[in-house]
Amino acid sequence: MNKIEHIGIAVKDLKKANELYAKLFGEPHYKIEEVESEGVNTSFFKIGDNKIELLEATNNNSAIAKFIDKKGEGIHHIAFDVDDIEKEIKRLKNEGFKIINDKPKKGADNKLVAFLHPKSTSGVLIELCQEII
Amino acid sequence: MNKIEHIGIAVKDLKKANELYAKLFGEPHYKIEEVESEGVNTSFFKIGDNKIELLEATNNNSAIAKFIDKKGEGIHHIAFDVDDIEKEIKRLKNEGFKIINDKPKKGADNKLVAFLHPKSTSGVLIELCQEII
Repeated sequence: MNKIEHIGIAVKDLKKANELYAKLFGEPHYKIEEVESEGVNTSFFKIGDNKIELLEATNNNSAIAKFIDKKGEGIHHIAFDVDDIEKEIKRLKNEGFKIINDKPKKGADNKLVAFLHPKSTSGVLIELCQEII
Repeated sequence: MNKIEHIGIAVKDLKKANELYAKLFGEPHYKIEEVESEGVNTSFFKIGDNKIELLEATNNNSAIAKFIDKKGEGIHHIAFDVDDIEKEIKRLKNEGFKIINDKPKKGADNKLVAFLHPKSTSGVLIELCQEII
């Protein structure tokens, strides 16, 4: 794993959160992207070599809607940048981690992504992501 | 803010979590540090230019013990590296953020730290930290 690629934060209202985080970082978000397959609108902020991804649900079945219902707004996941996601999935499965999606899928921000189940990581939803070149 | 300095993760058993995260990252933690004033034992992992801090409560009054009681194990806070913590506190107060400790205090890993209240940041506990030189 190369670095923290981004931290995903579940928010109720993306517009309001964008204003809030622009004040926090002293700079506005640099892009907005809808990921229809996940039922989310996302926005991205750059902090040095890392990113913050704000996530707003676009429907009630979205994982983000369910997360907010259960836990309220807050940190949803940590994403780590990897060079070879298939290799990392294999390595982590061998180490006993539970992978939610064995096959990487297309995520936001031009990435292939896979998630580790929080039950196998002390309660932390971890995303692996590999840039699509 | 320069970068994500670290992500703090609340764990029940530091020894077990150290083993788990060593498997996850393919490398062991590089240090353990007790912060008596906060009632926590911490361990640190390096991921590129970022760190992961695991936090275990050393007593029942520790914020980490209370967090785990309420929410279970998981991501506890995000820490951002800043050059001048007093200046950042002042700037963020002016922007309407609620600062938990107006005066920076000594945290783990040779840092001056201050926390923003999650009520003013979409549910995210944010730490500002400045390296003590």
